This record gives sequence, C-alpha cells and structure tokens, in this order.
Amino acid sequence: MYLEKINCPDDLKKLSIENCTELAGEIRLALIQKMSVCGGHLASNLGVIELTIGLHYVFDAPQDKIIFDVSHQTYCHKILTGRKDAFVYEEKYNTISGYSNPKESEYDLFPIGHTSTSISLACGMALTRDLKGDKENVIAVIGDASLDGGQAFEALNFAGEMDSGLIVVLNDNDMSIPENHGILNKKLNELRDNHGEITDNYFKALGFEYIFVRNGHSIPDIIKALNRVKGTKNPVVVHVCTQKGRGYKFAEVNREQWHWARPFNISTGEFLCKVPDENYGAIVSEFLIDKMQRDSDIIVVAASTPLCIGFHEEKRKRAGKQFVDVGIAEQNAISVATGIAKRGGKPVFATNSTFYQRAYDQIEQEMCIGENPVTMLVTHASVFGHANDTHAGLFDIALLGNIPHLVYLAPTNKQEYLAMLNWSIEQTRFPVAIRVPWTSVYETKDEVSLDYSQTKYKVTISGKKLAVLALGSFYYLGEQVVKECKNRMDIQATLINPRFITGIDEETLNDLEKEHDLVITLEDGIVSGGFGSKISQFFSLKNVKVINYGFSMDIPKKYVPIELMKQNKLTPEKIVNEVMMLL
Amino acid sequence: MYLEKINCPDDLKKLSIENCTELAGEIRLALIQKMSVCGGHLASNLGVIELTIGLHYVFDAPQDKIIFDVSHQTYCHKILTGRKDAFVYEEKYNTISGYSNPKESEYDLFPIGHTSTSISLACGMALTRDLKGDKENVIAVIGDASLDGGQAFEALNFAGEMDSGLIVVLNDNDMSIPENHGILNKKLNELRDNHGEITDNYFKALGFEYIFVRNGHSIPDIIKALNRVKGTKNPVVVHVCTQKGRGYKFAEVNREQWHWARPFNISTGEFLCKVPDENYGAIVSEFLIDKMQRDSDIIVVAASTPLCIGFHEEKRKRAGKQFVDVGIAEQNAISVATGIAKRGGKPVFATNSTFYQRAYDQIEQEMCIGENPVTMLVTHASVFGHANDTHAGLFDIALLGNIPHLVYLAPTNKQEYLAMLNWSIEQTRFPVAIRVPWTSVYETKDEVSLDYSQTKYKVTISGKKLAVLALGSFYYLGEQVVKECKNRMDIQATLINPRFITGIDEETLNDLEKEHDLVITLEDGIVSGGFGSKISQFFSLKNVKVINYGFSMDIPKKYVPIELMKQNKLTPEKIVNEVMMLL
Repeated sequence: MYLEKINCPDDLKKLSIENCTELAGEIRLALIQKMSVCGGHLASNLGVIELTIGLHYVFDAPQDKIIFDVSHQTYCHKILTGRKDAFVYEEKYNTISGYSNPKESEYDLFPIGHTSTSISLACGMALTRDLKGDKENVIAVIGDASLDGGQAFEALNFAGEMDSGLIVVLNDNDMSIPENHGILNKKLNELRDNHGEITDNYFKALGFEYIFVRNGHSIPDIIKALNRVKGTKNPVVVHVCTQKGRGYKFAEVNREQWHWARPFNISTGEFLCKVPDENYGAIVSEFLIDKMQRDSDIIVVAASTPLCIGFHEEKRKRAGKQFVDVGIAEQNAISVATGIAKRGGKPVFATNSTFYQRAYDQIEQEMCIGENPVTMLVTHASVFGHANDTHAGLFDIALLGNIPHLVYLAPTNKQEYLAMLNWSIEQTRFPVAIRVPWTSVYETKDEVSLDYSQTKYKVTISGKKLAVLALGSFYYLGEQVVKECKNRMDIQATLINPRFITGIDEETLNDLEKEHDLVITLEDGIVSGGFGSKISQFFSLKNVKVINYGFSMDIPKKYVPIELMKQNKLTPEKIVNEVMMLL
Repeated sequence: MYLEKINCPDDLKKLSIENCTELAGEIRLALIQKMSVCGGHLASNLGVIELTIGLHYVFDAPQDKIIFDVSHQTYCHKILTGRKDAFVYEEKYNTISGYSNPKESEYDLFPIGHTSTSISLACGMALTRDLKGDKENVIAVIGDASLDGGQAFEALNFAGEMDSGLIVVLNDNDMSIPENHGILNKKLNELRDNHGEITDNYFKALGFEYIFVRNGHSIPDIIKALNRVKGTKNPVVVHVCTQKGRGYKFAEVNREQWHWARPFNISTGEFLCKVPDENYGAIVSEFLIDKMQRDSDIIVVAASTPLCIGFHEEKRKRAGKQFVDVGIAEQNAISVATGIAKRGGKPVFATNSTFYQRAYDQIEQEMCIGENPVTMLVTHASVFGHANDTHAGLFDIALLGNIPHLVYLAPTNKQEYLAMLNWSIEQTRFPVAIRVPWTSVYETKDEVSLDYSQTKYKVTISGKKLAVLALGSFYYLGEQVVKECKNRMDIQATLINPRFITGIDEETLNDLEKEHDLVITLEDGIVSGGFGSKISQFFSLKNVKVINYGFSMDIPKKYVPIELMKQNKLTPEKIVNEVMMLL
C-alpha cells in the first residue's frame, strides 16, 4: 500500500507515475470509506484525486502556493500533505476540518468556504512574489461553477493585465451543486467537444494562454500539462476535464445528490440517516409550486442552491420557466430578482444565510432603497445550519437587520412561515426577507396573522416580572425558559414571539415596562448588532433591565452546535440561573 | 432653440436627425453652464449626449426600458424626459437629484449609484417581459469601467444563456474615474483600433452578438446601429466609442479631474472653491509614499477611487509598482490585499465607505476569519461624505463593526490617524480598518498611543454625572456638548474618545458606572447596529442610562448634511436639552 507511506509531498515525488495511479485508487477507497461513515463532499473530492496528485507531483508546496477555490475538494490535498491519518484511521476521522485551514497545516493558505476568490488571492500572492523578486509558482485551482462568480472574472481581468506568471487550473466537471448554468458553461462544453479549439475563447479573450487536458483522470497527461506551465512568466489557464463523483458509481450517476453526502451504505448507496419526509424545504417547495401554477407572475430565483428550499430536479422541472438558476452568482441573482419585481413579477430568491454576504450591496441599493418587493428566503440561519466558521448561519441578522426599508421576518412554525411568505409574495410595498425556521417542523393551531405590514410582536403568554423575547428558531428555547421559571421560581413569565427582526413594536415594549423588571432576548445569531441590540437600545433609558442572549462572534473552525450553545449560555438552565440572580 | 420645446421623448422624435445634432450642442452648453454653478459629473455626462439622444430617438421609453449603469451619466436623459427645466433655469437647478431616481420620473427605473448592476436588472426585466408575453426592448447602458465589476460578467453569463432579446449598450470612453484597468480595457482598445474586428472577442465568447460604432458622437451612426438591434430576439452588445468630457476642452484634456467637477469658471476652467491644501488625503498619501520608499513591502491597493486618499496621478507614479489599481472591482481588491498580506506584504486598501458594501463577504471570510493583516482605509464615512442615499457614508459601522477579528478604529485628528495607520501597517496579527476622519484637519499636541492591539478608550476630560463617548468625526460635537453642559448646567461631564469601534473597553466603562448616571454615545453613522448599540448592551443590566445619538436609517435621496443632523437631534443644543431633562 502506497498510501501508508505518504506523509508529505516529497514522499509522493519518490513514486513512479504508475505507482501514483495505484495510489489514486487507494485514496479513492479511503475517501469513500470515510465519507460513508462521516458524510462529506464526496463527489467533488472523488473528481480531483488524479489532479491533486499531479499538482503535488509537479509543484513544490508549500514553497509553491496552491490555492483551492471553495476548498471543498481538498481531501486528497490533505492526505498528501501530512494529514492522511484523518482519512485512514476511523478514530482520527474527526481530527480535521472539511475545508482549507491554515491552523491545520502550512499547506493550507487561507480558510476558504465561499467560491470564486482563489484567483484574486493568487494574484495578491504573485504580485508580492514579484515585488520581492522571488520565483515560486502560484496556482489557483478553480471549478467551472466557481467561474460563474463575478469575482473570478474580476481576478482574470486583473491577472491578464498583471504581466506576471500565474497558473489557473480549471477543474471542469461540468457541474455546479446542481447542473451548471450560464453561457460560459456551454462554451466549456464546446471546448470539451472540440479538443480545446474554438473561436472566441473566453480565457484568450482575457489575455490568458490556454492549455487543454481532455482526460483529467490520467495522471501522466496532467503531469505533462503542469510541467509545461511550471515557471511560466505569463498568466495561463490549464483546462482539465474531470468527472464529478469519479469511481463511485452512485455518485457518477447522481452527481447532485452526492455533492455532499450523508453517511451511506457503500454497496447499496443508501443514505443511513434519512431526511424526515416533513421538512421545511419540502413544505415550502410544494407551497410555491402550487402557487406558481395558479400565478404565472411568481418566479423562483436560485444561485446554485435550490435544494435549500427543496427545489430538487423534479420540482425544478415542474416549475418550468418560472424557475431560474443563475449559477453561483448571488449579486446577479439579487439584481435579477429586483428587475423582476420592478417589471411586475413576484420574485422569490432563496439561499443559505452565509451566501447573502455576497450580495449585501445589491440588496441595500436597488432592492431596498428602491423599495422593490422581492421576497428572500434565508435558510441555514442557525447554529444548526452549517457547523463551521466559513458557513456559520449566525451573521445574517446583523447583516440584513440594519438595511433601510427591508422587512426581515422570523417565523416560528409552519403556518406562520407560509402566511408570511404568502403575504410577502402578494404585497407590493416592501422588500422582505424571511428567516426560515431551522428546526423540526412545528405546527400551530393558533390563528396566525396574514398581514405583516406593521411591526407587531405576538405575546403568546402574558406574565409578570420577566419577559422573554424569543426569536424565530429560538422560540422553543424561550418556551423552555418560561417553563423553568415557573418550575424553579414560581414566576409566570411573559413569552413573546417577536416575528419581526427589523422595526420595533414600541407599543408592546412600552406595555412590558409596567409589570416587568427584566427582559431577555434570545436569538439564533450573533449578539453584536443583532435583534437584541435594538431591544437594549429601546430600554436604555427605562427602568427595565435587559439581557441579550445569542452567540459571540468567535465562531470555531468546526463545532458541535449543542456545545456551542452551552458555551454561549444558551440552555434553559443557564439562562434561568442568571435570571434568578437578577429577579 | 430646440431645447426649450423638449418636454418628453416624443418631442425629440419630431426633430430631424440634423436638428438632433443642433439639440446636442444646446444640451452640451446647458450642462456646462449648470455644472459651472452647481458642480456635478461633468465629463461622463458630456460624453453621452449624442448616445442618449439616439436612445430616446430610436426606443420608446418608458415602454422600452432603458437602465443606466451607475447613473452618473443621466443628465441628458433627464433633460429629454421632462426635466429640462432643472438644467435650463438656474432657480430650478436644485430640483432634481444627480442620479437615476424613480421618485422623480417614470423614465428612471431604479435608484442607481453603484456600478455594474444594470445588466442584471435588465435581465430580470427581460425575463419577466418574456413570461408575460410582452415585447418591449430592454436596454442596459453601461460604461467600459463598469464592465470590470464582476456582477457585469455574472449578468452577461446569465444573459448569454437566457435565449431572449437584451440590448447592452457599451459606452466605451476608455476611462474609469482615473485611467481604466484590466485586460478587458486593453481588448476594448484593440477593438477600437481594429474597427471592431479581433480574434477572441470577449462578448462573442459570452454568446452575444456584437456591433461596433466607431464614432459615438455621430447621431446618425448611433441611430443606425440602434435601429439594427431594436426588437432583437438575441442578446446583443452595441459597442459605442465615446469621448469623456466631449466638447469642453479642459475636461477633454484632464478627464480624471473633471470626472466630478466642483463649480468652475467656464472660460478659464478654474475651480471656484479650492480644496484646502491641508486635507487628510494629501496628508495620508504623503505619509504612505514616504513610508513606501523606505519599505518595499507596502503595497497600496485601489479600486478606481485612489483619489479618496489623495493618490493623484503624480503620486501614483511616485509609488510605482507599489501602487495597484484593480478597477471597479472591490471584491477582487480585498482578496488581492488578503493574498498580499499572506505572502508577507503590507497591503493598504482604500475606498469610500459606501463601496465597502461590495466586499463584505471577502472581508469577513479569508481576510478576517483568516486573520490576515490587511489595512483598510474607509473614507467619506460621514454625513458629510456624499449627501445622497445611494452613497451615504453612514452604514459602514453597522457593516464592518460586527465582523470577527476585525479591529475597526476611529481616529479624531491627524496625529492619531497616522499613528493608527503606522501601527496597522507594522503589526501582523489583525485585519484593521480605519475610519478616516471626515472633518477639517485637526492637530493635537497630546501624546497619541502607538499601539492599538488592546481595546482601550481614551478619557480626555474626567468629570461626573454625564459621560460623552464621542466617536471619530463626532469627537468635536462631543467637545461642544461637554462645553454646553458646563455653561448651562454647571456640570463637568466626562469626555471620551473611544478610538475603537470594535471591542469594548470594559475597564473604562465599569469605571464610569461609579460616578455617572448617564452615558451618551455620538456616532457619525446609523444608530441601528452601530457603535452605541454595543454600549447600550454593556450597560443594560447596570444603573446607568444610555442614549445613542446618530442617524436613523431613513436617508433622503439628496440631503443637506447640517439639516440631516438637526433632524436627528445631532446639535449640541438639542443633545444638552435632552440631557438636562434626564439629569
């Protein structure tokens, strides 16, 4: 077994090219084995094993700088750079993170989790190398879908002018998370079909030299191509065609489902933990498709993450022309949605909390200053969303909660979520964001409001002394706190479902002042700049004390959600302990 | 005179093409006349008079949708669409805003002030048109420099696949605010030099049809080209070569200086109000260039706004390879700076407060999560920065103040600013942003700290009862408040220069609790999610009342800074009135 002897890239360089091919097979098996237990980015990693071996065979990291875009394809890179144990020994599976991580290894240059930044980062490194008079290679490894992000173009445009050596390795697996989109994708397919020869080549149009590698799973071909560009004095693109999911038949066939795999049975390809049939994605996609069939003005806009609201392939087909995926291009998605709203359509955009960060400006400018009625669904907005620092769903309240004219809503159950969504689609006055509950599906038999044009909190239990404003996903934590207060202190606290993240319901808050000494806020997001901060500001001249519960900004690289909640005092017990001290 | 008779595009359509050419001359004179009095975007507007006449001659707005990117080139469009009085009669000069404004006219579709969004907005409108079965033309008018912004690529990539009619009019004046950058700019020059014929045409590479108009000041040529594309079923680019500053000799020669002109003497080209010789731009650019000459690791990175820190052409030349302008591409700029820092360079990036909105994600991810020591200078971050809603410098505290690991500093005078900048450049632990004072230049003879690695506020006057935390530019307002308190109440209040926007100096705040009943915060930014909100949170369990002074999020389209301060109770008198009620 070659894998056992690989502790650094130099060990790889001792192998013959034939041995490298055998090593690739061993790595493939190890990845499948580990991911069958832990889950992970299976398909993307299986597709780049040979490419990664080629990179470390030809270049001399960490002197040479290799930057992996998104970095959800770095498992093989981690294996080759001293971290194979975390892939080979089950007891060590959890010792590394799933993305590029400088705290883990000097071979990982940046913490990367969002797409399309690698070429920019590489430009900065190449430019500094030149100023210092050094000579190392700087290589950005980027997927075809990441090229759709505007920043990748910005960097190519800059690099083309930089007059310096820069290597862009395009890992073209013809897929995004779902199918890839955009005309560039079609052009890459033309290049695939024509052995790299077409008129009006995008990369050449941007001043890059261009090299085509038809078989990205042939280590000799890859090594040959990379040796050609090693030490280049010019910007060059090496276009490598790979197959997503390569070598695991289920992933090869269903690349979307296997982009990120839950633990599975290797021989049957069955996932071991099932997504419950009832989940908010399934509910909202059914709701939307039903509504879209009756109203052709509704258009669902995605940016490569339609699954976040349950738009699987079959549902996308059912939606027909009323579904649009712009690729990994959130800025464009937001402005397209704004254009749709202005033209009298009813756009619904959805993506993960963390990816809204890419489009703050477009949201704030034409959408919100222009008061265009776009609906945005914010998913994974919770400590339970993605448990790592680059994807933490904990910043969206501070980000979106301080934008003029935006109505940001936080439903707590199915009926409320759908009522808010329905209201938002039908009204024409406000841009609206909805923080999708990130819990199991709760139902309510209480009547839910059908109109959210006025900021109005909902008092669900009336009490005294203590008021608990429990926002969105943390409403149920609030319920527990109120119950504990009753049990431990015999206090009937007031429980409030604020529903509105933006705006202040002054009437309800002023009412609280009369019979409450303490108000606590609970939010599934950072405390700094969050929902609670507005409540603290409101009470800062009044005789009511306030505690804002939520998360500190210091999000670990990789965390266990329940543990992070404990560290931030977010358990009913810890909260009630603190409350007891104060009442 | 034709101009007097133009009240809507139909009036224009009654003219012969020869008459249109005369009208263009009249409009040119009116623009020069108005801007000599009011200032404005002179050079960009003079360059598009013939193009705009052509657009309204050929297309039927508002049925046909014309979207102007950035919209700082819409003066002629405003003249032709019912707003000529604001350009012809001096008493009406102030009745319109300088950008596209839907509240002003149905011919203005969006409030636009940032670049590169127009094609996306147009895609959204075209897509909705198609779904509704309508037939109007949708036209995005975009400058060559705006094409450098990644979102423009995202939209071209999407439009190329959309299989629908969309017209992109490229207004190529071969300039950004300073000279344009990027390989695409070079390729556009090649197209200019070769009558639109080159191999590897960028637009064709993205699936667009391409039409070239050599003389963008020939109304017949423009009308001919636009008639060719009217009603197109495919995406098409009309590349129109124009001259920035056309028809005013001083602006033709010095296009950068005349991009935005202060009031001037028409015959001599002299600006009537001078920028004081001593200003923070001049000071910091001298400081940086001096330091760069002694330290070749320092690299200044700009995104088309180098003037915001005084990097005029002469200074850019002096900086040589240590100055880099990436074009209007803030995302790339931030990641390039991050790459520089990682490779051991000392990057200093600068742009206006409002443009940081474009790069929140890149700042938060690789720069801040990665703890890479980039220095960011945030200019125009004040109510006095740009007095309109799309460029308001009032949101950066809420935006940057809630990012992990970032140290955001607010200096109050020259010595403090340079000390902070010097510290930031030399340290290697923190990403740092500095909110450049947006006041006249203040000097201090007090010693300023040389180390900002610990959050520590500076108590400049020790007093009792009232503590005033006066941040950055508003420090001087704090001084006045303290003085007024002495005069009117005989109270010696405490005055604090917080210096740190991020972090909390708990020691100083805990000290305050002993002898103060009221703490007020003053910040030159929105109150929601701002600096003061952290102070309110800190004191929310203590026996200290807090008032946060700053701006509401409702920023008018166009405002007079002093008036907006009054509306937000930001005068010493109003503040002290409120304080007197409470003490």
